[in-house]
Amino acid sequence: MASPRFWSFAAENEGNTSNQNPGTPRAWCQAAQKFTGGIGSKLCALLSTGEGEKAANLAAKQEGSTLETCGCKELCTCSKNNIDFSVLYSTDLLPASDGDTATMAFLQEVMDILLSYIVNTFDRSTKVIDFHYPNELLQANNWELTDEPETLDDILLNCRSTMKYAIKTGHPRYFNQLSTGLDMVGLAADWLTSTANTNMFTYEIAPVFVLMEYVTLKKMREMIGWPDGSGDGIFSPGGAISNMYAMLVARYKMFPEVKEKGMSAVPRLVAFTSEHSHFSIKKGAAALGIGTDSVILVKVDERGKMIPSDLERRIIEAKQKGYVPFFVSATAGTTVYGAFDPLIAIADVCKKHKVWMHVDGAWGGGLLMSRKHRWKLNGVERANSVTWNPHKMMSVPLQCSALLVREEGLMQNCNQMHACYLFQQDKHYDLSYDTGDKALQCGRHVDIFKLWLMWKAKGTIGFEAQIDKCLELSEYLYNKIKNREGYEMVFNEKPQHTNVCFWYLPPSLRYVEDKEERLRRLSKVAPVIKTRMMEYGTTMVSYQPQGDKVNFFRMVISNPAAAFEDIDFLIDEIERLGQDL
Amino acid sequence: MASPRFWSFAAENEGNTSNQNPGTPRAWCQAAQKFTGGIGSKLCALLSTGEGEKAANLAAKQEGSTLETCGCKELCTCSKNNIDFSVLYSTDLLPASDGDTATMAFLQEVMDILLSYIVNTFDRSTKVIDFHYPNELLQANNWELTDEPETLDDILLNCRSTMKYAIKTGHPRYFNQLSTGLDMVGLAADWLTSTANTNMFTYEIAPVFVLMEYVTLKKMREMIGWPDGSGDGIFSPGGAISNMYAMLVARYKMFPEVKEKGMSAVPRLVAFTSEHSHFSIKKGAAALGIGTDSVILVKVDERGKMIPSDLERRIIEAKQKGYVPFFVSATAGTTVYGAFDPLIAIADVCKKHKVWMHVDGAWGGGLLMSRKHRWKLNGVERANSVTWNPHKMMSVPLQCSALLVREEGLMQNCNQMHACYLFQQDKHYDLSYDTGDKALQCGRHVDIFKLWLMWKAKGTIGFEAQIDKCLELSEYLYNKIKNREGYEMVFNEKPQHTNVCFWYLPPSLRYVEDKEERLRRLSKVAPVIKTRMMEYGTTMVSYQPQGDKVNFFRMVISNPAAAFEDIDFLIDEIERLGQDL
Repeated sequence: MASPRFWSFAAENEGNTSNQNPGTPRAWCQAAQKFTGGIGSKLCALLSTGEGEKAANLAAKQEGSTLETCGCKELCTCSKNNIDFSVLYSTDLLPASDGDTATMAFLQEVMDILLSYIVNTFDRSTKVIDFHYPNELLQANNWELTDEPETLDDILLNCRSTMKYAIKTGHPRYFNQLSTGLDMVGLAADWLTSTANTNMFTYEIAPVFVLMEYVTLKKMREMIGWPDGSGDGIFSPGGAISNMYAMLVARYKMFPEVKEKGMSAVPRLVAFTSEHSHFSIKKGAAALGIGTDSVILVKVDERGKMIPSDLERRIIEAKQKGYVPFFVSATAGTTVYGAFDPLIAIADVCKKHKVWMHVDGAWGGGLLMSRKHRWKLNGVERANSVTWNPHKMMSVPLQCSALLVREEGLMQNCNQMHACYLFQQDKHYDLSYDTGDKALQCGRHVDIFKLWLMWKAKGTIGFEAQIDKCLELSEYLYNKIKNREGYEMVFNEKPQHTNVCFWYLPPSLRYVEDKEERLRRLSKVAPVIKTRMMEYGTTMVSYQPQGDKVNFFRMVISNPAAAFEDIDFLIDEIERLGQDL
Repeated sequence: MASPRFWSFAAENEGNTSNQNPGTPRAWCQAAQKFTGGIGSKLCALLSTGEGEKAANLAAKQEGSTLETCGCKELCTCSKNNIDFSVLYSTDLLPASDGDTATMAFLQEVMDILLSYIVNTFDRSTKVIDFHYPNELLQANNWELTDEPETLDDILLNCRSTMKYAIKTGHPRYFNQLSTGLDMVGLAADWLTSTANTNMFTYEIAPVFVLMEYVTLKKMREMIGWPDGSGDGIFSPGGAISNMYAMLVARYKMFPEVKEKGMSAVPRLVAFTSEHSHFSIKKGAAALGIGTDSVILVKVDERGKMIPSDLERRIIEAKQKGYVPFFVSATAGTTVYGAFDPLIAIADVCKKHKVWMHVDGAWGGGLLMSRKHRWKLNGVERANSVTWNPHKMMSVPLQCSALLVREEGLMQNCNQMHACYLFQQDKHYDLSYDTGDKALQCGRHVDIFKLWLMWKAKGTIGFEAQIDKCLELSEYLYNKIKNREGYEMVFNEKPQHTNVCFWYLPPSLRYVEDKEERLRRLSKVAPVIKTRMMEYGTTMVSYQPQGDKVNFFRMVISNPAAAFEDIDFLIDEIERLGQDL
């Protein structure tokens, strides 16, 4: 039943992979040796089966070694798992009668693949990415979905191949996105969430998770600074949706009739956000029938912070045109510059003009956990709503985004439709815990457990420590390159968040006098270096243009695994890959 | 560091749990015995550590047995794991240097908890739910998030307690929602997805998953019947959002200027859907600024199917009022009755009046996998868009919902905002795989891998078999109760989907002549039986009123673990719990 073309690309390149991740099974056994008790044998036993076995066989072929001589000194009498997955199918697993043995062996095998991946993730000698172009991957592998089933052996092979080509987003040298890192407690929590496989809409089917969301949202509101943590909120599928919720609730607060009558019943609404704000504000406006033209972009200063006087000027202008300003979205931690808009001054403007103040703290919200850095969000307590994504700066597994709303009950009134098949009013428990009707979604994924469990495991001080460390690393980077030859900062002064924006100028560009020529060539530097980074697989960092500034690197650090040596590595790598340009 | 109040409720009730799940460690060892090779010892070794150990100690205290005498005959020389989690913290795990041993032991411990839960899930002698009222759970446990960290021992305890109070949504007697079941390959895939911890927005950071989504969406469009599977689509966070996408794209198709200008630039739009359709259509209309008043509810027949002539009448009426009909949402599998709207006749009306035809097949879409049942969706190939949730009838873990769109490029044009920091145009690979800009979300959870891997593992015929079986069970239930004393069907004729809607009349109600009195009392029967079901924890099935019909049971079957005996059990249980009412 195994397809001959199956992940053939993977097979062809297996040798390379092994070279990239030298001695994975050996590394395991070395790890196993550190156990003083029987866990060593246990891990060796795991190694002797499935993933370990195949990896070991491969290693043996290539390195002339076998698992038995890997150096593990523990007595290991557990014999090999002789379950033959090549004759088993998913129908042999639970709920099949007698499916429990095969199920446990299969899941353990998958677990071994994942454990191996995890160990590799944190091993700096492994690649961040084993990059292939879309057509290569598409042509080389059998992606096809067919009528006939594949064996569990094939399924395990799929899992291995998928992990082979996955980006190691937890790798200490992966700096590509605002969400990086792989937290072990968060991961365990996400596995548990998958296993519980339930839905957040009612207490009836998610009692524990619903209560955890209740407790955690309250705690987050306390950290924002709302009295007694009162208010409302929800975990939503990402910051863009959280921001859209905020806009939706703000509109409803001002014109509740919009729910029934639509936008035709209300005057022309306008929203305000900075030039550097996240594109989700415009996306939300388009979706909600407000229109992107009604999102007015407020000027920012050299550091990327909204200029409050420009905000006020534009609000007044809009009023003069007969428009109704209903929503200001200030950003706490912009995507590119990491700028924090001046929230107090913005709150003053919002108060004066009676406009809903939203703070998009998707990226910067995490700094509320840090006594050293939370001043950057001073004024957030005056907001009417706040987006805060624990999956970004707090390294909670994707996705985990919260929208917090100061006024209780608004979300419910705005979104509820009273579906009687779900939110029966004659249930036997307190219905206030059936929170589903305040959501835009019907079914809602359980995103809370990983955050709650990580918070338990770290305490607030643990989050604080990891956030402070990321900011320290970013300051280290800034100090290292600000006066270094070949670097130019996109803006001066120490970064407020972990974003460090800079150009790297290859030697050939450093003395080009013609400004046009210089910019033209400079704009191509970052894309080429990035391409090479991905092809070598050594590190990943993002670049983009912004306004009239040509392509520059935006370094961000949110991964607790990153260390000073990784910052050093990044600089060396940029220079290695870019010096000939 | 361990809190004395920590999950004290759990501790107090541990005895009960054990009685509910008799001999979990023994069950494990029995399972282990079935392995002919060393896997037996391996599983015993797992049992000898962590979860197994604690469970075994508990069992020993209560049953006078120890693990060593559990009956497992395999030689088991792996000694116990002597890692002491009570002195370890999350900071001792990776990426801590030397954190690999503790990490592997910790994750294996979590895995053991999950494996134990999984085995219990399919064990009919365990409870579906260990129900407690919100205040009981809130008061009895320590939910608080504090400054200080807890030990890994506490974290593991949290995991155990969370699983103790979780609803077993994969239990063969859990019939409460449209999404039930726990698929082992799907679960493994979800664990892998968590471990890969990436984001769908670009090929750059999710190459494999992006390609899998591409392949799978194409396959789904082929099954819908669109030529060569051409078109577009996306996996979204649930059916409600998928339906909202459809409405958004339909509006954009008719009035592309709405994106910039908002609803004030377009005439009054109206949407049509049946009285029995899902509430997300209204929710979407409210959010998109269309307004719920502009969702016109079309009459249904006795079976809950939309009446096409009423649809046409209302479209004509709306046009006469100067409104612009832009969207018809037909339902393939209504939430309560499981009705399939007559798609061909609806397509004719839509074509005639040039209105976008959407099919909400969130629940019924799965029947496209069945040669025996797919005729119920005849005409779906004429739709402009289709919602299809593999997390419902196909038992893919939550969440997995697809929106399929017939016209390619519309979604992109409708939603794109060209965020330059994410969708750089000078990347080195084919940018058509950066699909993030067609989404409403920015970050997007990877929902594809579980579906893709399950499809690989089952083949289309495997999905077909499990869907056919669920429909067979539902027909069995229908035949069993349609003429049984004490039952009344909410509608006659064999159900089209697995929804079986019925009233149970306790003996005292069967001969009540007064119609008002009868209805008044009947409306209270289902809620009381449901309460008792949850308190006993034996089974769960949903109830609701609909229109002028008082509370009735809506039985649905989507769980491949369910068998004839479970249907028999449900009937017995309803009668046992309801006969005194």
